[in-house]
Amino acid sequence: MTADRFIAMTMLFEKYARLLDEDRLEEWTDLFVEGCLYEIVSRENVRQNLPLSLMLCDSKDMLRDRISALREANIFNIHVDCHVIGPVHVAPSDAGWDVSSAYALYQSTQEGETRLFSVGRYHAHVVEHDGALRFARQRVVVDTGAILTLLATPI
Amino acid sequence: MTADRFIAMTMLFEKYARLLDEDRLEEWTDLFVEGCLYEIVSRENVRQNLPLSLMLCDSKDMLRDRISALREANIFNIHVDCHVIGPVHVAPSDAGWDVSSAYALYQSTQEGETRLFSVGRYHAHVVEHDGALRFARQRVVVDTGAILTLLATPI
Amino acid sequence: MTADRFIAMTMLFEKYARLLDEDRLEEWTDLFVEGCLYEIVSRENVRQNLPLSLMLCDSKDMLRDRISALREANIFNIHVDCHVIGPVHVAPSDAGWDVSSAYALYQSTQEGETRLFSVGRYHAHVVEHDGALRFARQRVVVDTGAILTLLATPI
Repeated sequence: MTADRFIAMTMLFEKYARLLDEDRLEEWTDLFVEGCLYEIVSRENVRQNLPLSLMLCDSKDMLRDRISALREANIFNIHVDCHVIGPVHVAPSDAGWDVSSAYALYQSTQEGETRLFSVGRYHAHVVEHDGALRFARQRVVVDTGAILTLLATPI
Repeated sequence: MTADRFIAMTMLFEKYARLLDEDRLEEWTDLFVEGCLYEIVSRENVRQNLPLSLMLCDSKDMLRDRISALREANIFNIHVDCHVIGPVHVAPSDAGWDVSSAYALYQSTQEGETRLFSVGRYHAHVVEHDGALRFARQRVVVDTGAILTLLATPI
Repeated sequence: MTADRFIAMTMLFEKYARLLDEDRLEEWTDLFVEGCLYEIVSRENVRQNLPLSLMLCDSKDMLRDRISALREANIFNIHVDCHVIGPVHVAPSDAGWDVSSAYALYQSTQEGETRLFSVGRYHAHVVEHDGALRFARQRVVVDTGAILTLLATPI
């Protein structure tokens, strides 16, 4: 893999995390292709081959709907996100690339109290679309499950 | 942006964090230009457009004074820092670059007890000065505010 | 340092962390040279120049034995790891490179409860061996000591 490819994938993941942190969810949605799959699954369910998802959107429209619903519910204002992600792993696959990275997601209240919300790993399939890198699939495998009943926003 | 530019900014941020973690605060100060602005502000104050800073040094001399005061107060020995920072975002701006990254800062006591001290985002303006990259501005926007009354050292 | 070198070291550290997270410990062992040194030491002991190690393996065989013992004890299943590491620092040294990075290691139970297990810094010496980058030395300096009596797996 070339240096340019590695850095382009790093920048894509950086943008993904930053748009979530800055509550720019509509722009975040634009990082996906129309027929995308966005899924949050627990590592334990993956290990046991259970098909349960904590969140599942199987198109960009569905992802947009979800974001709209969140905007209307005004849940955003309850907390702010801070994603710290590690270096990416990139492997060519299926006319695109499988890209993964570890992440830690912290949530803070407006009063400035921070808690660790979730750690885990992104497993993305990235393709080139109209000259830009886009997510064809983003599967978030979370190690942290206990607090996911509170899940409202994407990870 | 070229690969070299991206990596140079990554290395600058890495050095910034490492010098703080290794308590090499005088060398850390050397990463700033003379007329620099170093500021810690809470995300909530930024959102409300409040001009309050948790720390504000508007020159390298003032930053040096602050470090000297900390050295004399011997507050350093109370804890050690560990910064884990994410990938940088780089955008050309004003004869330099705006560079940001998410961070998580952990503090540990000499007895080895670790707590999350602060998460947030660096918003830097970086310029080239005498052939080296330097901070003209570093604005640390912290999500975590509740513990900042204890703030003593830079983030 | 060239962009390619920086990225190659980033990829080595990424692989190191990912193999641990995915419980692929035998492959993780393969990242070391035969006469390697793997050591976990506390930052406080380093500061006081105390020779105590929390874990010490002074060859790849010893590292393999340790992994085998862990496999037999079946301690792995108690938790899963998630390493989030920061950008690497690379400096040429002794026919190889000194490479360091900060890390945060989270552990989660099968029930999905996550805790911060350890933060600290990797101090590696990396060499080229048969065309691949390998660890000749990995010294993990941990800031977090209070929970290390529970230490079972590598960091």
